Amino acid sequence: MNRQSLTLLAAAALAITSAHANEGMWMPKQLPQIAKPLKAGGLALDPAKLRELTDFPMGAVVSLGGCTASFVSPQGLVVTNHHCAYGSIQYNSRPDRDLLKNGFYAATLADELPAAPGSRIYVTVDMKDVSADVLNDKTRALVGKARTDAIEATEKQLVAACEADKGHRCNVYPFFGGLQYQLIKQLEIRDVRLVHAPATGVGLFGGDADNWIWPRHTGDYSFYRAYVGPDGKPADFSKDNKPYTPKHHLKMASSPLNEGDFVMVTGYPGRTNRHRLPTEVDFAFGWQQPTQIKALGEAIDIIKAETAGRREAEIKMASRMQGLQNGFKNLGGQQQSYDGSDILARKQAGFDQLKTWVNADAKRRERYGADLGATESLIAERQAIQRAEMLMGFTSPSLLTSARQLYEAALQRAKPDADRKPGYQERDVPRLRAAQQSLDRRYDEPTDKRLVAHFLAAYLAQPAGTLNASVLNAYGLKAGQDEATVRAQIDKLYAASKLADTATRMEWLTKDAAAFQASDDAFIKLAVALHDDEEKRENRDKELAGKLQKAYAGVQQAMIDYHASRGEAVYPDANGTLRISFGKVQGRNPGSDGTTWTAFSTLRGIVAKHRGPDEAGGEFNAPAEQLAAIKARNFGKYYVKGLDSVPVNFLATLDTTGGNSGSPVLNSKAELVGLLFDGTLDAVISDWDFNPKMVRSICLDARYMLWQMSTVDKTTRLLEEMQVK
Amino acid sequence: MNRQSLTLLAAAALAITSAHANEGMWMPKQLPQIAKPLKAGGLALDPAKLRELTDFPMGAVVSLGGCTASFVSPQGLVVTNHHCAYGSIQYNSRPDRDLLKNGFYAATLADELPAAPGSRIYVTVDMKDVSADVLNDKTRALVGKARTDAIEATEKQLVAACEADKGHRCNVYPFFGGLQYQLIKQLEIRDVRLVHAPATGVGLFGGDADNWIWPRHTGDYSFYRAYVGPDGKPADFSKDNKPYTPKHHLKMASSPLNEGDFVMVTGYPGRTNRHRLPTEVDFAFGWQQPTQIKALGEAIDIIKAETAGRREAEIKMASRMQGLQNGFKNLGGQQQSYDGSDILARKQAGFDQLKTWVNADAKRRERYGADLGATESLIAERQAIQRAEMLMGFTSPSLLTSARQLYEAALQRAKPDADRKPGYQERDVPRLRAAQQSLDRRYDEPTDKRLVAHFLAAYLAQPAGTLNASVLNAYGLKAGQDEATVRAQIDKLYAASKLADTATRMEWLTKDAAAFQASDDAFIKLAVALHDDEEKRENRDKELAGKLQKAYAGVQQAMIDYHASRGEAVYPDANGTLRISFGKVQGRNPGSDGTTWTAFSTLRGIVAKHRGPDEAGGEFNAPAEQLAAIKARNFGKYYVKGLDSVPVNFLATLDTTGGNSGSPVLNSKAELVGLLFDGTLDAVISDWDFNPKMVRSICLDARYMLWQMSTVDKTTRLLEEMQVK
Repeated sequence: MNRQSLTLLAAAALAITSAHANEGMWMPKQLPQIAKPLKAGGLALDPAKLRELTDFPMGAVVSLGGCTASFVSPQGLVVTNHHCAYGSIQYNSRPDRDLLKNGFYAATLADELPAAPGSRIYVTVDMKDVSADVLNDKTRALVGKARTDAIEATEKQLVAACEADKGHRCNVYPFFGGLQYQLIKQLEIRDVRLVHAPATGVGLFGGDADNWIWPRHTGDYSFYRAYVGPDGKPADFSKDNKPYTPKHHLKMASSPLNEGDFVMVTGYPGRTNRHRLPTEVDFAFGWQQPTQIKALGEAIDIIKAETAGRREAEIKMASRMQGLQNGFKNLGGQQQSYDGSDILARKQAGFDQLKTWVNADAKRRERYGADLGATESLIAERQAIQRAEMLMGFTSPSLLTSARQLYEAALQRAKPDADRKPGYQERDVPRLRAAQQSLDRRYDEPTDKRLVAHFLAAYLAQPAGTLNASVLNAYGLKAGQDEATVRAQIDKLYAASKLADTATRMEWLTKDAAAFQASDDAFIKLAVALHDDEEKRENRDKELAGKLQKAYAGVQQAMIDYHASRGEAVYPDANGTLRISFGKVQGRNPGSDGTTWTAFSTLRGIVAKHRGPDEAGGEFNAPAEQLAAIKARNFGKYYVKGLDSVPVNFLATLDTTGGNSGSPVLNSKAELVGLLFDGTLDAVISDWDFNPKMVRSICLDARYMLWQMSTVDKTTRLLEEMQVK
Repeated sequence: MNRQSLTLLAAAALAITSAHANEGMWMPKQLPQIAKPLKAGGLALDPAKLRELTDFPMGAVVSLGGCTASFVSPQGLVVTNHHCAYGSIQYNSRPDRDLLKNGFYAATLADELPAAPGSRIYVTVDMKDVSADVLNDKTRALVGKARTDAIEATEKQLVAACEADKGHRCNVYPFFGGLQYQLIKQLEIRDVRLVHAPATGVGLFGGDADNWIWPRHTGDYSFYRAYVGPDGKPADFSKDNKPYTPKHHLKMASSPLNEGDFVMVTGYPGRTNRHRLPTEVDFAFGWQQPTQIKALGEAIDIIKAETAGRREAEIKMASRMQGLQNGFKNLGGQQQSYDGSDILARKQAGFDQLKTWVNADAKRRERYGADLGATESLIAERQAIQRAEMLMGFTSPSLLTSARQLYEAALQRAKPDADRKPGYQERDVPRLRAAQQSLDRRYDEPTDKRLVAHFLAAYLAQPAGTLNASVLNAYGLKAGQDEATVRAQIDKLYAASKLADTATRMEWLTKDAAAFQASDDAFIKLAVALHDDEEKRENRDKELAGKLQKAYAGVQQAMIDYHASRGEAVYPDANGTLRISFGKVQGRNPGSDGTTWTAFSTLRGIVAKHRGPDEAGGEFNAPAEQLAAIKARNFGKYYVKGLDSVPVNFLATLDTTGGNSGSPVLNSKAELVGLLFDGTLDAVISDWDFNPKMVRSICLDARYMLWQMSTVDKTTRLLEEMQVK
C-alpha cells in the first residue's frame, strides 16, 4: 500500500546513499527503521537522539493543539505560523486596534497579550504503548457498545493515573484504526501570550488566492511565549507568572540553506488516510468530500455576503473563514487529483492482493477472514448514517451548540468524575469555560442566522424519509420547507435566547440539569428537547464503533503482517501525534503547467505580486515599509548571492499534512532554517495517495522572517533573545 | 540606444549561427539588413521574398486596424485573436443570444454575421517613401502652425491621389518622429463577417487575471471572412457579395513545432517608445502613466459597480472594459519594472553621449545643435499642456463626444473636400457613420453618468488656475465642486438630449451647422458652445507640433547618424505599420519568482485552472465538453508525446507589442504555427527599454485551436476549408 515505504525500508537494509525517499511521517520509536536513511540523507546528529522526546531537539518541539511550534529561546519564546496564531491575533483585534491588519509587536514582556481563551502549549514528555491495557482480555471478549464503553473506561483510567502528575495533559491515541494505542503525556502550559505577529500583508500575503500555491511569498510566522507560575509549574494566566524555561530550544541556523540540503521536520501531523479501505476511498471522493466542498463553498459565500462592509463582523468571522477557505481549497484540490485518476483501482488492487494473501493460507484465513468480511459491511452501515446526517452538522446555531455543551456538562457533573463522558470530566472544565468565553469574539448574529437558515433548508430538502423526526419536532420544522420559512422560525429562537451574552453563558456553566429543564431560554429549551435523540444516536454510534474497532484492527493487522511477509515496514497514518519527516530542499519539475518550480522564492516576487489594498481583495498588499526596503535593496546579511535577493519561501521533499503547520524545519545540525506551513494543491491528494515526484512542502525561510523582523519591523528585543546578531 | 540591434547588425556582418538576437520590429524594406540572421535563424524561404508586400507570405497578412490577422483559405477566411474580434462578438450579442459567453459558429456561409459597424480588413499593397514630398523645400522653410498645415496639406494630396484607385485606403505615416514619411496603400475590405468564435471560457480563458501572465491557457482565436462585391472589388455589406479571393493565404504547419524552432511574425505593432528622449521617459513614468493608471482603475471600478447584475449593460460595456483592464494592467506592469530601475539613468547617459558626439565636431554642432537645444524645451511645453488637460479626456459624456463629432462633420462638410480636416473628408464618412451607428451597442446611461460625474469632479479638484474656463462655463460648473453637485448638473444634460437614439444621431449626420447652432438638444448645444475653445487649443497644438516636428526630426537624424558612425543600424519605433520580427520558441529562466517557464503550456493547465462559473469572477470557466474531452484524453493527432498532452500556448523570443495581436506566427517555411496574442507583464516595459533576457511573446499554438475546433466545437466546414484533414 505504501510503495515508497517499501523502497525506503528495502534501501535501509542496504547501504543508502540517496535521501530521495521522502515518504513517511515516522513515530519517534520507529527511529531504528529510519536511522540509516537519516544519516545517509545528511543528518549530522546521532539519529538515536531523535528517539528521546525530552532530549534535544525533540524537547524543543511543542504542540498548540492543531498546530506545531517550537521553543526558540531559554525564556519560553515560541515560534509558529501566523495562521496558527491567527485565532489569538483575531481575538485581540477590534476595528480600532486591528492587529490582524497591522500586526503586533510587544516591545516588553509586560506588553505581551493573553492569547485566545483555551490557548495551550503542549510539551510531549512521554509516549507509551498501552495497547495491552486498552485491549485487555476482558475487553477483547466484548462486542458492540460494551466494547466501546470498556475501551473508553480503560482510557479514562490511564489518563487519570497519568494526570495525577499535576500540570500534565494525557491522552490515549489509537494507531492503525484501533489496532494499537499510545498513552501520550504532555506538559500543559495554560498561560500563553501573543508576542509578535507581522501585518496581514506579510503573515497572510497572498491570502486565499495563494493558499496551497507555489510560487509563494508568505511570511507565515508569529511568536507566542509560554508562561508558568512563580513555582515554574503550569498555571492559569496571572500577572505574577514568569516566562517558562524550556529544557531545550532551537537555535537559528549557523550556515546558509541551499538547494539539495538535508532538512527534517518534527511535528504533529493531524490526519492521513493512506491505509484506508477501497470502499472508504470511494465514499470519500464519490460522495462525502464533494458534499463537503459544496457546503463549505456555500458557507464561504454567505459569510462574505453577510460581513461585507462590516469590519467588526469580518474580524469576528475571520478565523472561521480562514478555516473554511482552507478546507474548501484543500478538498477541491484533492478532488481534482482524484477525479479521472486510477487511485481507486490501485487501492482496490492492493486490497485484493491482501485478500488473496489471506485466503492462500488456512491459518491466515482463520485469523483475518472474519474481520475482512465484516469490515466492509460495517463501513457501509456507517456510511449510510453519514449520508443521512452530514448536513445536520452545518445546521446548529452557535448558541445552540453552546447550550448543548452547557446542558451536557450539567448532566455529566452530576456523576462521579470517572463515570463522566470524555470531554466533560473535571480535566475538561477549563476548555469548556474557554469555549464559552471566546464565543462572543467569534459570533456574528446576522451571519449565524443566514448560515443556519440556509443549511436547515438544505437539510429539509433531502428525502423526507431520511430526516430526523426528533430534530424537526424540536425546531418546529417540516420536510421541504424553504429558507424563508425556516428563517422565520429560527428568528424566533434567536429573539428568545439570552445566550449571546457571555456572562449569561458563564452562569449556566454552574447550573444543574433541573435548571436547564426549567429554563425558558429558547436555545436551552431546544438543547434539552434534542438531548434524548442525541443520546440515542450516540449509543447507536458506540455500538457500531465497537464492532468496527474489532474488525478494522484485524484488517490493519493483516495489512501489516502482509507487508512484513514481504520485508516491508509500515508507518501509521497521521493521528495528531509527534512524528518525524525528512527530505531535502528541492524544486519540482513539472511545476504547474507551463512552469518548473525553483527551490526558493525571493523578495522580488513580493514586489511583483503586490496589488495594494483595493485590488484582488487586498490579498496581495505588502506593507509600504517593506516594499521600500526591498526597493532600496536593504538586504543586509540575509542577502543570498545566487538569488540576488533574500529567500522568502522554499520547497522541500517533506511528507507533511495539516497539523504540521508551524513545525520547525531543521537542517542537518538540527538548527532552525524555516517553518513548514503548506503543501501544494496538486499534491494534497497525498493525504490518501502519496506521489514522491509531486509532493513538496512549502516552508517559510527563516532568513525572510529575520530580515523582516530586523529591517522592517525592528523587533530588536526578540532578535536579541534569539541571539540573532 | 538599442544595444541589441548593435549586436544583431554587427553579427550580421560576420557569419551568424545564432538566432538569439531577438530585438527589432523591422520594416520590410530593411530586409537586406536582416537577411543573414533570418537565414542563420533557420528561415527556409528566400528572405528577399519578405520584402515583397504582395508576394507570399506578406500578401496573406492583413490589418484589422489595431490588430493583425491573416488569410487562411482561398475563400477569404481570416484568422485573428478572439480579443481582436471581441467588438464584433459583443456587437452581435444580447442576453438572449450571448455569443460572448457561448461562442459562435456559422455552419454555412449564409449564417456568417456582419461584424461590428466600421470593421475593416486592410491588405497592404504598397509602401512608398514620401519624405521628400512631405518635407519639400517650401515646407522646410515654414515654422509652427504653417509648417503643420503644409505637411497636412501634402499628406492629403498624396492620399487623395493614391485613393483615386477605388477600394483602397491610403495613409501617410511618420517614422522617427517626423524625420521620414511613408505613404501606405491598402485594399480596404468593407464587408467583414464573423464566422466563428469559441466560447469565452476558451477564447478569454483566464480573463483579466491571466492577461499578460505566463503560464497561459487562452484559446485566443476567432475567424472573420472578407467579402467583396460580385465584381471582386471592395463593397459595402450586401447579400449579393461573395467571399474575397486573396492573392495568398497561409497554410497550416506540415511539421510539429518544437522548443528551439525558428519563428517569425509579420504584423502591425502599434507603438513603441524606444527612441524617446530622457525627458519624455521621465514625464511618462513620473507623471503621465501613474495618472493614467489611477484614472483607468477608477473607471474599471465604476463600470464594475454600475453594471453588476445587469448582463445587458455588462455586454455593452464589455469591449471598453476589456480595453481599460488591458491598459491598466499593462501600464501597471511597465511602472513596476520602471520604478527603482536604472532606465532613466541609462537613457540620460545615452542622450549625453549623443550630445557629446554632436558637440565634438563643428559640422555636427551646426547641423544638430539647434534642434538638440530646442527639442527639450518644446517637449516641456507640450508636457505642461498634457498635465493640465489629461483628465479632461475622461470627462466627456459619450453623447457629447458624438455631438462634437457630428458638429465638426457639419462644419467641415461646408468646405471643399480637399480643405477639410483629416478625419472629416468624404473618405471618412463611412467611419463617421459607423461610429455613430454602433454607439448604442456600447452605451449604458447609468455607467456613462457615473464615469462623467466622477472624472469631472476629479478635474474640478485640480488647482483652479489650471482649469479651462470655457469648459466650466459651457457645463455650468465651478472649480472644486463635488461629484454630487456635478452629477445634478449633468443629469440635466442627459435628460435634455435625444442623442441616445440612434436614428436621431444618424439624422444629425446630414444636417448643416446652422441646424446645430439652432438646436435645443443639450449635448448639441454643449458641443457648439465648446467648439471655439477646441479650435483654439487645436491651433495652439498645431503651432507646437510644427516646431516640434522640425526639432525632433533633427534629434532623430543625429541619433541615426551617431549610430551609423559606429556601424550600427536602427529600426524605427513601431507606428502601426507592417513589420517583421523573428526569434525562436523558448521558455525563460528566470520565470516569475520561484519558477522557470517552459516553452509550452498544455491542456492539463486548463483542468488545473478551471474554477467554474461562480468562482474567480468566472474567468476560469472551461466548457464542460472541453473538460470531458481532456479527461477522456481525446487528443487525436494533436497529441505531443513530449508534453503528454496537446500544447495550448507557447513562448517565443519575438519582439512585439500591442497591434501585433492576431499576427500569424510562422515557422521556417512560413507555415502557420500559431497566433501571437500577448506579452508578459514583467517585460511590457520593453515598449520603452528592451531586455532580450526577459522579453517573451505569448502565442496560441495552432494545434490547440485545431484540436478545439475539431474535437469540441466540430467546426468541420472551416477545418475542411483550411485543408485540415
